[in-house]
Amino acid sequence: MKVSELGEFGLIDLLARMVGASRDEHLLIGIGDDAAAWQGDTSIQLATVDSFIQDVHFPSGTASWQELGWKALAVNLSDIAAMGGLPRYALVSLALPKDTEVDDVTALYTGMLELARQYGVAIIGGDISRAPLVAITITILGNTKNRGEHILTRSAAKPGELVAVTGGLGAAAAGLEMLTKKLQFDPQATACFKGASLHPYPRIAEGQLLADQGVKTAIDLSDGLISDLNQICKSSQVSARVEIDRVPIEPMVKAEFSEKSLELALSGGEDYELLFTGRAEVIDRVKRAAACPITVIGEIVAGREGVTLVDSKGNPFNLGKVGWEHFITR
Amino acid sequence: MKVSELGEFGLIDLLARMVGASRDEHLLIGIGDDAAAWQGDTSIQLATVDSFIQDVHFPSGTASWQELGWKALAVNLSDIAAMGGLPRYALVSLALPKDTEVDDVTALYTGMLELARQYGVAIIGGDISRAPLVAITITILGNTKNRGEHILTRSAAKPGELVAVTGGLGAAAAGLEMLTKKLQFDPQATACFKGASLHPYPRIAEGQLLADQGVKTAIDLSDGLISDLNQICKSSQVSARVEIDRVPIEPMVKAEFSEKSLELALSGGEDYELLFTGRAEVIDRVKRAAACPITVIGEIVAGREGVTLVDSKGNPFNLGKVGWEHFITR
Repeated sequence: MKVSELGEFGLIDLLARMVGASRDEHLLIGIGDDAAAWQGDTSIQLATVDSFIQDVHFPSGTASWQELGWKALAVNLSDIAAMGGLPRYALVSLALPKDTEVDDVTALYTGMLELARQYGVAIIGGDISRAPLVAITITILGNTKNRGEHILTRSAAKPGELVAVTGGLGAAAAGLEMLTKKLQFDPQATACFKGASLHPYPRIAEGQLLADQGVKTAIDLSDGLISDLNQICKSSQVSARVEIDRVPIEPMVKAEFSEKSLELALSGGEDYELLFTGRAEVIDRVKRAAACPITVIGEIVAGREGVTLVDSKGNPFNLGKVGWEHFITR
Repeated sequence: MKVSELGEFGLIDLLARMVGASRDEHLLIGIGDDAAAWQGDTSIQLATVDSFIQDVHFPSGTASWQELGWKALAVNLSDIAAMGGLPRYALVSLALPKDTEVDDVTALYTGMLELARQYGVAIIGGDISRAPLVAITITILGNTKNRGEHILTRSAAKPGELVAVTGGLGAAAAGLEMLTKKLQFDPQATACFKGASLHPYPRIAEGQLLADQGVKTAIDLSDGLISDLNQICKSSQVSARVEIDRVPIEPMVKAEFSEKSLELALSGGEDYELLFTGRAEVIDRVKRAAACPITVIGEIVAGREGVTLVDSKGNPFNLGKVGWEHFITR
């Protein structure tokens, strides 16, 4: 069987089962969450890695090298945010064609360092290889603030909890559409879409706020709302109902993409907002404490159907595409 | 300027200078050693990353997927060995063409897990991406045994110290020659060369023994003896003299490659032995305590000339090639 038939998630499940037996006594979370976690001496330690590959994760020529650096790091910091952790150190593995301009590589680092400094992250190592294409693989090491603190996982959602999300959705996918299809918008919309696609801000402070307020379950929105919520359902062995009318579509996306905006918000991906679950009183506490919008979009229910979309009347709503998965061609 | 003009080491120096200011108070070693190191609560923490890219680090078709898995992990564990540390956790970032067989990916993991279990390493996370070629990027997290222990760096060599190396050299390069040029040898030599090239054993126990016995400076032999010793010279701001007659060329390499064997041992690379320096009495202690051969091959001297090769009469000896550097075409 080819990996394209099994799909990314199927392959991860298979490898996680192979690896299972090698877990050690300090390990809290292995393969299958936003980051791995183990008990350190004074706090929980976190580690995550993500590759950012030319023509796969980013189309050639749509972003500057500086934007690429920012985004490659942001995507990784977002995984630490989704665990409720503080990012601390980064290791950067670069694969570069040999005719790459040195100035482009320093611009890439300028973008990474700009974000790293804002979030108190130090780049402490890495390696550089020759390759036929650009690939940026970043490892982030982080931790919780102190020993007593819990981490946010994908596997703690319980029926009866509400499903909520930070910020607005769809603008990153709108940005990708705009950049790859060379769509024209007014300057304000252009800036909004481009910023969302190339310059995302990982929700580090919000992730910690969620943990502080008693949230147990979260994931960052990288593949798309439906796909990522499905991950929570699978890991927690529950299902979820999402009311499509409550999904906080970014107003600029709604204005410019009208009917397509819902699809961008539900399955466009790369918003790097946090999707989380909690009892109503927990979500209320989060709403009061958070500086960004928090929107309840549905609830966790029993069963193994995964994510169901419903309209305002409670009738099932069908959307074809369900998020980004590597290998599987749609 | 292209990265091919600046070269891998020049690019690393440039990026290390850019990153410099982001160092944090706990960081002991940032970019430029075998691994990054920082002070943890009960021991020194170590992290290293290395990519293993098809047609760059390994020629397609010369190794099985299982061998590839072993070697990709071994190369990374070797960096922890060179710091005198214990490897603990691994994160694996895989880039794979979509027509890759699932069985090949599980064979890759079988190879990694075989080595990981032997060395007490747990694979705790990673990611998988579609890509036009195979790339395996592994991050290893490790630590020293306890708080008081020091780590081995590249930057502590002092004039008057001896230069020594574990094991024998040249067999891995002989194996690469054999596999890529389809050379024929008797079964014993074939097994020796293939084993050295595809199934290296990282010198974890030896790295800790070096630290225990008071060695301060070490590097693992990945690029080749001369190139890697040059790294020690550069980081320590010293020079080194190597007596070519003392270089422990693997006997099987000497037998099969005669005159070329010295070049394979000096600049072939990938032996993953440890090269280290220390005062004569320290090296003597290491010799008595080590289970593997320890050979003194030269000495550290003052000056900034880097590595000088001398013959048995002390006359300069010239060797054209000086080890593997990415981007620079020879």
